[in-house]
Formats: sequence, structure tokens, C-alpha cells
Amino acid sequence: MDSSCGSQSVRRRSMAVLCKPAITVPEYVITVEDTLELARRLHSDHPQLDLVLDLIAHTGVQKRHLIQPIEKVLQHPGFDERSAVYEAQTKERVPAVVRRALDQAELEPQQIDLIIYVSCTGFMMPPPTAWLMNTMGFRPQTRQLPIAQLGCAAGGAAVNRAHDFCMAHPGANVLIVACEFCSLCYQPTDTGVGTLLSNGLFGDAIAAAVVRGNGGTGMSLEHNGSYVIPETESWISYAVRSTGFHFQLDKRVPGTMEPLAPALSALAEEHRWNASKLDFYIIHAGGPRILDDLSRFLDVPQEAFRFSRATLTEYGNIASAVVLDALARMFDDASALDGDRGLMAGFGPGITAEMALGTWTSDPAPGE
Amino acid sequence: MDSSCGSQSVRRRSMAVLCKPAITVPEYVITVEDTLELARRLHSDHPQLDLVLDLIAHTGVQKRHLIQPIEKVLQHPGFDERSAVYEAQTKERVPAVVRRALDQAELEPQQIDLIIYVSCTGFMMPPPTAWLMNTMGFRPQTRQLPIAQLGCAAGGAAVNRAHDFCMAHPGANVLIVACEFCSLCYQPTDTGVGTLLSNGLFGDAIAAAVVRGNGGTGMSLEHNGSYVIPETESWISYAVRSTGFHFQLDKRVPGTMEPLAPALSALAEEHRWNASKLDFYIIHAGGPRILDDLSRFLDVPQEAFRFSRATLTEYGNIASAVVLDALARMFDDASALDGDRGLMAGFGPGITAEMALGTWTSDPAPGE
Repeated sequence: MDSSCGSQSVRRRSMAVLCKPAITVPEYVITVEDTLELARRLHSDHPQLDLVLDLIAHTGVQKRHLIQPIEKVLQHPGFDERSAVYEAQTKERVPAVVRRALDQAELEPQQIDLIIYVSCTGFMMPPPTAWLMNTMGFRPQTRQLPIAQLGCAAGGAAVNRAHDFCMAHPGANVLIVACEFCSLCYQPTDTGVGTLLSNGLFGDAIAAAVVRGNGGTGMSLEHNGSYVIPETESWISYAVRSTGFHFQLDKRVPGTMEPLAPALSALAEEHRWNASKLDFYIIHAGGPRILDDLSRFLDVPQEAFRFSRATLTEYGNIASAVVLDALARMFDDASALDGDRGLMAGFGPGITAEMALGTWTSDPAPGE
Repeated sequence: MDSSCGSQSVRRRSMAVLCKPAITVPEYVITVEDTLELARRLHSDHPQLDLVLDLIAHTGVQKRHLIQPIEKVLQHPGFDERSAVYEAQTKERVPAVVRRALDQAELEPQQIDLIIYVSCTGFMMPPPTAWLMNTMGFRPQTRQLPIAQLGCAAGGAAVNRAHDFCMAHPGANVLIVACEFCSLCYQPTDTGVGTLLSNGLFGDAIAAAVVRGNGGTGMSLEHNGSYVIPETESWISYAVRSTGFHFQLDKRVPGTMEPLAPALSALAEEHRWNASKLDFYIIHAGGPRILDDLSRFLDVPQEAFRFSRATLTEYGNIASAVVLDALARMFDDASALDGDRGLMAGFGPGITAEMALGTWTSDPAPGE
């Protein structure tokens, strides 16, 4: 059984349209200049400081947004306090983003059948979905799918599992929430080059989007797949410690587009599409080399990744929220035409790629 | 859109048979007598010791199995070390259970399209799925769905998401793994009555099962749903701290079958079944009152829950693995007949019920 699993026969019957995502970034801003200045001050005696500064300067990130002032981010208050901040910030910031995503899809909470909640930068049990249901008026019958362990790939995974759910339950609607407070994983005692680079790369953001089973304007999901690069499970990982999650980044990660580009091409071929000749691309902007390399290995012009690059420039790597933010920028750009074919891809630990193919569609009769 | 979401029209086309689960419990055993003796020794000055002893004596648990000797369980070595033990024990113990589940479903790793990995008693990123794929020869295209935040309800959630996946991708096969090392969440400094009861209730176990998209003997999944009891999200929860996950159990939890029984009945009615008159029941054995109350509120004889009760008696509450273990006992019992109608239900934080309806089916032509 190949990974296409007969989805083509199903999609004729069922629809799953990824509507316009809502995004929020918090109010505290740190520029690349601030970051470089901080790195110089905090790590003045680091043997590879010049390399670190050079890597940060070339991330392509101009600024990032944080849920707390940088002075607070830099002080590790202990994992107990961080977990409390994670929960409090979630409850303070998520509902408004969800409300906007629902409005943009012209749906009410009562019309949602599944909430997929992805977040790798904090941990709650029960997941925030239960609180959201009680707070925002979702039906008690709403399914919950919390995913904490797929990192930056979880945005793509959420879209793909939403697509599957709509195929399984024609007419169902799925809410996706991607809540990433990356600054709550800052670890002052970790000073490896990969960590210091990450400290200059990741930002905080919340994204939400609805996948509608009927109607809707956006990316009509048609085919999805996943790919894990063999023997790379240690390349992106957390050490789970008394001080919380410690992000560990192998220096081989930026080179992973060479093995992943063929996986994207193979998925497109299953769908009789050519991954090099699509009309739009929504790619996880893990870092600048990811986008540069994928452009080269897929033989796609750099310009095709402009939405992802804008996310990276303005917000940094916002983990699972990147693909939703990049898609929201494409909506704002209003350049997509009905029938345009596109690819979405999230990359994260595993090394895992979560890939989706879809066609731009405008709802001819907006409303339900 | 109600929670049935049109699944009845889909199931005529697609199959999803939950095959015989494989279970393993570790080699270190603690009896209820050992547990009572320990409680007396460790909490001799506890103001509610008599209540605690009474609660433990009435759990119905005769023995539990642990991944380490009890002396080691009782010493908290710090969250860093516990995380390391969690990962090492996972890698040591999970592959053999997966191998057995695949054998029982007559499938090879290459034929699996999705791995759903549920575990709430430790945390890894990437999830163990990536390592499993590399170690056991799963295809790089295998999807991964790790769920860490649904607690004891995750076993039912895994079955339901596997069912959805098979409806979305007819012919696809899904591997479910439920790995629960509850003893790694023992917190010596927590002495609330709910915690001390839990210390006498939970056990360690690993379960795995395959949902086959074609063929197979077992529970043919037909309809699934979820229900969250409003305003109960604080009743079962983790405090996430520098010492790891601290399980918090509200004393109202044992009374939750009264609001959940109607949810089970409603789901059955959507499927035109009567929840009180089914041929088999695979219920999460959270504790003895769960089974007693559900029997009463559903008007089902106690005997109907004998597989769940056997799990509780012999292994304790093994969290997300309970429903798979109870189902395995029903296979061993060999009493189910083709066409028998049954209900599976997992309960956990939220308070969430994950419910599945299905019909017993024997593969007329075993093999692929």
C-alpha cells in the first residue's frame, strides 16, 4: 500500500478547504541588532562567538516578537514558573486568534467537529482544547487532537490530519491552533553553537485556521503525505530536563533539503503534478538555507517562497505556526487564482516533512 | 453538523478492523499487600492514612507490574534521569510488543501507513515513532501521530483516529502503540489523598495493536465519537514541574460515569444501537467505581465488564493501555461471535470520553 492510500478517489466526494489563517504575534519586539548585541554581551568569551554572530546575522530575521520583555525571557525562573506562564499566556492570547479564524471561515464554535492543537514549547494535560471548549462554546462532542511532539512539522501535520478527518467525515469542520511560545524554551546555560543560533532564530506567535468540509475560500486540500529522512532522529531534539525543554540542533539540519526535495517531488508525482511547476508554495521557513536550498533542489524560483521568507524576516522561525502565517500572507497578497496548484510543507524533528497538495478555490456562494 | 459526520455512509465502502492487541507488562511485581504496607510505612503520620488504606484496599487491584524494582521507583532521581530512563525503557521494551501486534495482524512494518503513538508518562521530541521507523523497517512515508496529552483517554482516541484514517485512506493500515510507565510519575513529596490513591492504582504496561484497512479478525470499527464533560478540565491534570509530571486527581472523578453514560447512549443511538444491549464492552478501568457506576447507569450487567475488571485486578490502571489489554483478553476468551456488537470507551483528562462502536468480525480468508 503506498502513501497515496486511495485519497484521490475520496476527494471527488469530499471537500476540505483550508481557510484564511488568523495570526497574532505578541507585543514585545527584538530586532536582529538587539540579538547580536545581546549575544556579544552574554557570550563575550565564547570561543566561537564570531561564528555565532555571523550565523545570526545571516538568518534573514529582522525582528521577532516575544510574549515577555527580553529581560524576563533571559531569566530562567524554573520549569514550574515557566509552565505557569505557558498556561496563563495560552489562556490570555489564544481565544482571540481562534475567534478571528472562525470569523474568517464564517463558522461558529458549535460548527467545529475537531480541534487540532499543536504546540511544542510547553506542556499541559489536559491539553488547552478542554479549556477552550468550555470557554468559547464548542460542543462537548468536539474531538480533540493535541500534538506536542512534532515540533515545527506540526503545522503541516495539523493540516494533513484535518484533511484526513474531512475525508473520513464529509462535511465536518476542523479548527487548527498552533501556539508557539519559543522564548519559554530559552536555556541560559546552553551555549553550543546550534543553541546560540536558535536563540537568535525562533520567535513567539499564535496561528489558527479552519479547514471547512463544505464551501470556503482557500487551499482545497487534495493529497497529503509524510517523509522521515532515515537515521536523522537525533538531529533535532529536546533534552527533557528539570529546567524544561532543551532544544538541540545538529549542524547537519540546514542541509536536509537535498534529501527532502525528492520526497516532495515524489508526492507531487503520486498526484500527477510536477513539484517544480506549481503555482504557489507554502514552505516552513526553518532558516534561510532551507528556503535557498529547496529553491535550488526543486528548481523553483526564490520568488516562489516569498511568503515564507516574509514570515522569517518579520517574525523569525515561529515553529509550527510558520506555514499558517505564510499562507495568511498569500491570502493578503490576493494573487492566487482559482485552480492554482500549490504545495504546503512543514519540516521538523524526525527529520519529518509533512506535505500537502491543494488547489486554490474561491467559495462562489460565501456563507454556509 | 452532529458528531456522526456521515461516517455511516463511508463505512460501507471502507473497513477498519482493530486486530488482536499485544501486551507486555514488566517483570517487577507489587501486590496490593505490598502497596498497603508501603503506604503504612511511608505515611504513618498522615492524618487521613486510614482513608488512604481503605481506598487502596478497595481499588480491586491485586498486583501491578513495574519497569524497575519498587525501591528504585520510590527514589526520585530528578526529571533529567527520569526522562533518560523513559527513553531507554521505551527503546528496550516497545519493539517486541510492536512486532507481536504486527504478527497478530499478519502484516509487516512496510505495510503500515500511520503509527499512532500514545504515552502520557514521559515526553520525547521527536516522538519514539521516528526511532521505531528507523529501527524496525517502517517505510519513510509512514505518518506519525504522537499524542501525549490525552492521558487514559488516549487509547480510545488512538483507535478512533486510526478508524478515521482508514476511512480517509481506504485500505490503509494503522499501528497503535500505547506505552505507559506510570511509575515514572511517582512523586514522593505529593501526599494528597488523590495522589496516594493513585500511587496504589497505576501500573506500567505497553500495548500495541493494528487497525487493518482490509481483512483481519477483530472489532470492525463503525462509528466513533468524543464527549467532554463541561467545566471539568481541572479534575484530572498534570502540574508540569522541575520534578516532572505531578498527577492531580479530584475526588469528584469517580462520580463521572453519571454524566458520561448518557454520552455513550447518545453515540449508540446515532448509530441506531442501544448502549444497554450490546454484546461486548471494552471500558477503561480507571478504578472500581467507574465500572460499578457505568454498569448501573447503562443498565448493563457487571459481568459485561469482566475483561476490563481483569485488567484492573492483574495490572492496575495502565492508563491508555487499558482498553487494548481488555480487548486482548476478549480475544483470548474467544466468546465473541461474528456480528456481535460492541462498545469501546476510554476516559481521561478533560474529562474526555473517547468512544467507538464496532462489530466483531472474523477474516474468512486470513492472510493478505
